[in-house]
Amino acid sequence: MGIQVGVIGAGSWGIALSYVLAGNGHDVTVWSRSDSSVAKLREYHGNEEKLPGVKLPESVKYTSNIEEAVKDKDIIVVVVPSAHMRETIRLMKPFINETEEHRQIIVNCSKGIEEDSLMVMSDVILDEIPGCNVCVLSGPSHAEEVGKGMPTTLVVGAFEKEIAKYIQNIFMNSFLRVYISPDMLGIEIGAALKNVVALAAGIADGYGCGDNAKAALITRGIAEISRLGMAMGGKFETFAGLSGIGDLIVTCASMHSRNRRAGILIGQGKTYKEAMDEVNMVVEGVYSARAALKLAEKYEVEMPIITAVNEILFDGKSLQEAVKDLMMRDKKTENNMLEW
Amino acid sequence: MGIQVGVIGAGSWGIALSYVLAGNGHDVTVWSRSDSSVAKLREYHGNEEKLPGVKLPESVKYTSNIEEAVKDKDIIVVVVPSAHMRETIRLMKPFINETEEHRQIIVNCSKGIEEDSLMVMSDVILDEIPGCNVCVLSGPSHAEEVGKGMPTTLVVGAFEKEIAKYIQNIFMNSFLRVYISPDMLGIEIGAALKNVVALAAGIADGYGCGDNAKAALITRGIAEISRLGMAMGGKFETFAGLSGIGDLIVTCASMHSRNRRAGILIGQGKTYKEAMDEVNMVVEGVYSARAALKLAEKYEVEMPIITAVNEILFDGKSLQEAVKDLMMRDKKTENNMLEW
Repeated sequence: MGIQVGVIGAGSWGIALSYVLAGNGHDVTVWSRSDSSVAKLREYHGNEEKLPGVKLPESVKYTSNIEEAVKDKDIIVVVVPSAHMRETIRLMKPFINETEEHRQIIVNCSKGIEEDSLMVMSDVILDEIPGCNVCVLSGPSHAEEVGKGMPTTLVVGAFEKEIAKYIQNIFMNSFLRVYISPDMLGIEIGAALKNVVALAAGIADGYGCGDNAKAALITRGIAEISRLGMAMGGKFETFAGLSGIGDLIVTCASMHSRNRRAGILIGQGKTYKEAMDEVNMVVEGVYSARAALKLAEKYEVEMPIITAVNEILFDGKSLQEAVKDLMMRDKKTENNMLEW
Repeated sequence: MGIQVGVIGAGSWGIALSYVLAGNGHDVTVWSRSDSSVAKLREYHGNEEKLPGVKLPESVKYTSNIEEAVKDKDIIVVVVPSAHMRETIRLMKPFINETEEHRQIIVNCSKGIEEDSLMVMSDVILDEIPGCNVCVLSGPSHAEEVGKGMPTTLVVGAFEKEIAKYIQNIFMNSFLRVYISPDMLGIEIGAALKNVVALAAGIADGYGCGDNAKAALITRGIAEISRLGMAMGGKFETFAGLSGIGDLIVTCASMHSRNRRAGILIGQGKTYKEAMDEVNMVVEGVYSARAALKLAEKYEVEMPIITAVNEILFDGKSLQEAVKDLMMRDKKTENNMLEW
């Protein structure tokens, strides 16, 4: 039996998830902001610009009226750029049913930290709609591959196990395997901050550091994200999972990644502004780098790689100096949680 | 002040580590089995065949007499193929000083599980020389890059923190950063079994699975190695570290890796024997796959990816069937250590 789903956001990931949900037999309504974009979506049965080649079933509906995409839906999948999360939730709020009989579930699929508040996306949602039923879906997933039905894994985090299982059942199929987790916060922190490490790995690539240095940056990068994430309340295990190291691996392996491509350009000597111009898109890692540094200061966690990325991006630190400083820091234990 | 070091094994990693140690001002003697190979090492100042371009300092000595490489050395770095570990330790044993005044340290740099005993390498060493002072050095490190002085990180595990710090000081320099850890067993299990996952990732590449599936295999592969490793006494944190996921990342990223190259051929439809012939070298992942399955049975740990690799290699299971079975297993929690 299909359920009623609203998908808020029609970028590449929104369309890929709509492809999964409609294919699984659910009744999908896709919302996009403007009438003109809705007209294009309806004509192409998808987003020709951002996810070319992926055609959604005839059954999928498109609307720019948020009420149509939200009211009476069983689940609402939110997949908008993190900078637009708060205003989108405000648009949705009047149509969210919070009564016990039909408590809608909001599935957050956006990744990021809100710049001023330093909140993860589910906390932004809860801030706007206190007590709402929110969960999070994340993991290593290029939309291009999901849209072709290629094998992919995700993890859904929720406050209640029953909710996590319900969402797992809605999304899972022969090419999309979904795990469940109680650690919503850990999932969101890993997903939001891995872009900074992807940027660092790209810089190392561009600078010509080699595979050993890149593996070191990825491994020690996720180690420092884990330290911060645990200080914020997340669990170590989550950062070693699909939404943490898994998502970071897929990002660092791919030339699809804007963060990696921008990093390579910076590693070759460009400024971050020149790199962003050349990539011609917003590079989230640049913003996440600032947010991560603020969080590191707030929670008093040592984050040498995040700090180095900030110094390279914003303080003109040379790459040679940055590498030297990272390599020649105090001698350390690999993981302070382990004791002799 | 330099110390006296014997390096047992003159393959690519033995030469790269000799390059580090001699460069750090230590007195290095490299042992190789035959007089003819020693003559070649001496003439080239390195191993022209296995690590071309890397020239060791004039100060480095070469010998086929194991007594010369072992007796009175402060540390003995063992870096031989895992299949030759036990016989090599037997050769070394008569010359190891175990008295309290000058207790030599054996640094194991070989990775693998002994086929019949299912022991990790440091346990093989301890089995032959009970009570000896053994530690382990591991991490994401192509010898080619270390031999060029490119930035690299390693972790040294030891029973005593003072020993770990001593070894850290001997190896660390401006391009080699060394961390310390109490979890010797976890380091060795991760290093030995990651090749099976690298083989699986290669198979997925060859079969055309995409980046999402590869990231999933890597992440869930290290998850099941962690489950086994913890049942054996290792620590979860170690598998999320340099010797676990870090080493796996460097292996999966590189075409240097025989395991990955063999996997790609198997993914394209070749048998493992055909793949080994074509790669023209021993593919450790094939042997590790068997050992890992035996360990999984011994410790009663569920290892779906390791099992699938064994079925593909040895039971003729089709890739299509293997992917389907992995994707459609029971619905799971991402990590059973986390509770709602």
